[in-house]
Amino acid sequence: MAKNNNKMVSAITSMNEDFAKWYTDICKKAELVEYTSVKGCMVIRPYGYAIWENIQRILDTMFKDLGHENVCMPMFIPESLLNKEKDHVEGFAPEVAWVTHGGSEPLEERLCVRPTSETLFCEHYANIVHSYRDLPKLYNQWVSVVRWEKTTRPFLRSREFLWQEGHTIHATAEEAIFETEQMLNCYADFCENALAMPVVKGKKTESDKFAGAVSTYAIEALMHDGKALQAGTSHYFGDGFAKAFDIQYQNKENKPAFPHQTSWGVTTRLIGAIIMTHGDDNGLVLPPAVAPVQVVIVPIAQHKEGVLDKATELYERLKKTGVRVKLDDSDNSPGWKFAEYEMKGVPVRVEIGPKDIENGQCVIATRYNGEKAVASLDELEKAVADKLIEARDGMYKKALENRENKTYDCTSLEEIVKALEEKGDGFVRAMWCGEEACEDEVKEKTGVGSRCIPFEQKELSDKCVCCGKPAKHMVLWGKAY
Amino acid sequence: MAKNNNKMVSAITSMNEDFAKWYTDICKKAELVEYTSVKGCMVIRPYGYAIWENIQRILDTMFKDLGHENVCMPMFIPESLLNKEKDHVEGFAPEVAWVTHGGSEPLEERLCVRPTSETLFCEHYANIVHSYRDLPKLYNQWVSVVRWEKTTRPFLRSREFLWQEGHTIHATAEEAIFETEQMLNCYADFCENALAMPVVKGKKTESDKFAGAVSTYAIEALMHDGKALQAGTSHYFGDGFAKAFDIQYQNKENKPAFPHQTSWGVTTRLIGAIIMTHGDDNGLVLPPAVAPVQVVIVPIAQHKEGVLDKATELYERLKKTGVRVKLDDSDNSPGWKFAEYEMKGVPVRVEIGPKDIENGQCVIATRYNGEKAVASLDELEKAVADKLIEARDGMYKKALENRENKTYDCTSLEEIVKALEEKGDGFVRAMWCGEEACEDEVKEKTGVGSRCIPFEQKELSDKCVCCGKPAKHMVLWGKAY
Repeated sequence: MAKNNNKMVSAITSMNEDFAKWYTDICKKAELVEYTSVKGCMVIRPYGYAIWENIQRILDTMFKDLGHENVCMPMFIPESLLNKEKDHVEGFAPEVAWVTHGGSEPLEERLCVRPTSETLFCEHYANIVHSYRDLPKLYNQWVSVVRWEKTTRPFLRSREFLWQEGHTIHATAEEAIFETEQMLNCYADFCENALAMPVVKGKKTESDKFAGAVSTYAIEALMHDGKALQAGTSHYFGDGFAKAFDIQYQNKENKPAFPHQTSWGVTTRLIGAIIMTHGDDNGLVLPPAVAPVQVVIVPIAQHKEGVLDKATELYERLKKTGVRVKLDDSDNSPGWKFAEYEMKGVPVRVEIGPKDIENGQCVIATRYNGEKAVASLDELEKAVADKLIEARDGMYKKALENRENKTYDCTSLEEIVKALEEKGDGFVRAMWCGEEACEDEVKEKTGVGSRCIPFEQKELSDKCVCCGKPAKHMVLWGKAY
Repeated sequence: MAKNNNKMVSAITSMNEDFAKWYTDICKKAELVEYTSVKGCMVIRPYGYAIWENIQRILDTMFKDLGHENVCMPMFIPESLLNKEKDHVEGFAPEVAWVTHGGSEPLEERLCVRPTSETLFCEHYANIVHSYRDLPKLYNQWVSVVRWEKTTRPFLRSREFLWQEGHTIHATAEEAIFETEQMLNCYADFCENALAMPVVKGKKTESDKFAGAVSTYAIEALMHDGKALQAGTSHYFGDGFAKAFDIQYQNKENKPAFPHQTSWGVTTRLIGAIIMTHGDDNGLVLPPAVAPVQVVIVPIAQHKEGVLDKATELYERLKKTGVRVKLDDSDNSPGWKFAEYEMKGVPVRVEIGPKDIENGQCVIATRYNGEKAVASLDELEKAVADKLIEARDGMYKKALENRENKTYDCTSLEEIVKALEEKGDGFVRAMWCGEEACEDEVKEKTGVGSRCIPFEQKELSDKCVCCGKPAKHMVLWGKAY
């Protein structure tokens, strides 16, 4: 049990005053991360890492239920291997970290620290895939990768970040495309259910594809400040990598054929998304599914006889239901504890004091909306379970309303500029002819870039918002993290 | 369900013919690892990685039950940070990989890829530990580390390997020493219970300590070939790192004080230990607790009516009990399947054919001793559960007998040489005066080095086996992996 802790939870910068500072204040005050002398890298502290462990556990189960297996590739890629697929190396070489020495000796060939592992998976597949019987391989790994970013921010952009990268190889294009879409849906379900964060599913435009991909799908979420955050991506590679790495298999007709591949990933960026989707001026607000502590019990007037005993009894009862519960019986004041667990985004708080005990009840406070309700102690387990479900649903609804309020349908560049000026940053939906020149011009003139071509299309007009020529797609535009 | 697979499980080199080749044959044929073009690094394949996931899950629960929390430090260490503790840098600098370039630009200061993370944890502790109220911090991380080894072997020695590293910081020396010993006991319990592998707990001699430690404890296991394998280590640092990194806290008397630290780790080397402790000429033999598949069901004459239905029914029944069960209903012959799952070390095989069904029974084969027994289908769940417990106990007993047969008590260098010659490599127990010169001389003259000073001492004589002066300790000697 916790000791008395005299440090105060100092207030954080308000979101409206300085959004960027509000964000980093939460990262620090909720004890998610700490800076290090390694520029652009951070320590993920126990509370932040526990969120990631919950994300991992849920996603890993979803992946395995879909037949995926985990593996572990080396963290290094020899330069010659990285160079094998032209588009891929062009995309990544400028931002990798290079190992040039082992001990005191220079290496014969320099090695990059993996920025992503397509090349290693391809080399491995070339070794183990020979027949249609060896297909598909549905592999994933949970590792960290390195990209030498110039400017960094906790969780959103750092030189090293944690992620999972799925890499699959299939006999046919159809199977690989099915996989690409399936994994995007898997990510979307996870974000909406577990993180209570609505997302838009769509396809990236040609200019915004992953290096080496035939097509890239993404899920896009809208943050509190009206900026877009790409929360997950899924790539279809066709047989381009297979050809570059000479991966061939004998098909059922006993003829040589090239397999088709995919890759897909989500990162610790999701923790940044949680902060900026649900957080408020009191701190973090965590979706129950990934909260390290789902319920905190705060005894009121705990020095009075029977209070701590009762609080402990409630703790034991809740623990038995499998909920992640903590009893804070430290000497800190209830007010201090309220602020502390609000900062840390604990979804539900149970208060129990002498009067509550007399009345056979307790107070249950919900973090996301600040509401308090009284519950009978006889029905504590059910009341807490209900509140956790209510919290997820309420958080999702609130985030969806926020997104809808900040999604603007526009049919001209002027309308885009006006909407953004009057209503603030947000998602813009507008038609597009498919030409990269128009994509660039929209960005230049309005500030919003193409986020994706949503699967769910709506014909807002038949003309491109930029050039006026026939429109091909409705595009979701926004300013991006 | 698996497809027909025509590849044959080819026989492996026998253990007595060529132990090293037998070992690598198992690594390949049981599909644990695959080589890569990254020299000294390997792919851990799904079956090998699933063993590691089970090791992780069990150990992680043990660590958390003892109050530890997981964190994640950067994978890079700036050279100046590595240089802060003199002994530590001397121990590790010769074998680290150096990152010198980010993208196309040379770095201002080169970074090493962590060979271990004491320095990063120290920097972090200096930031977050200020008062006795902040102590202890009981942290752990599951990551990979890099050491630029010249010669490498799968799991036993590779340039990158997976491990966990616990790093704790305490107010007093007593607390830190308690932690160091507690974690060694935790490792020993894990090895003996979960891996069915007996270990000797002891302290390393001065010359064999971890770089920067006051004392290093280790668990040592004996492999089939009579060589010793260090299976886990736990280090007590005193306040040396705290002084080097200026970590100070205000104690209860409001005076500045230096905290005391520990670190402890086990690696994927444990998978090598499993292979060389339990494996045989038919392949891997896995302890049930970490086996990816604990029970495989092989239908006999599966084309006959009712066989596959019954096999599926048994599969569903076993699955419900929480056991990791697989039904192989592929078109491969039962003989092929037997060989395949023997190679993969699946602890228990259930055979079910038309005659068994008629008689309301099945055959249960145990991998470690090759025994077959008949069980009533009515009591399948209990029979399988019993066999899994029996397998762990039987494997432990067998390994312990092997170790005892290969442990030689000697009172002179001549006796050591003779024992090793006549009985083969093994553990030697002999007295030692405590002088490094004698330690070196024993190694030079007999080939065995000091493994540890076992906690469990026995006075074999009162004289050092080497110089004849008064003995201080009984030492466990051996040839080491």
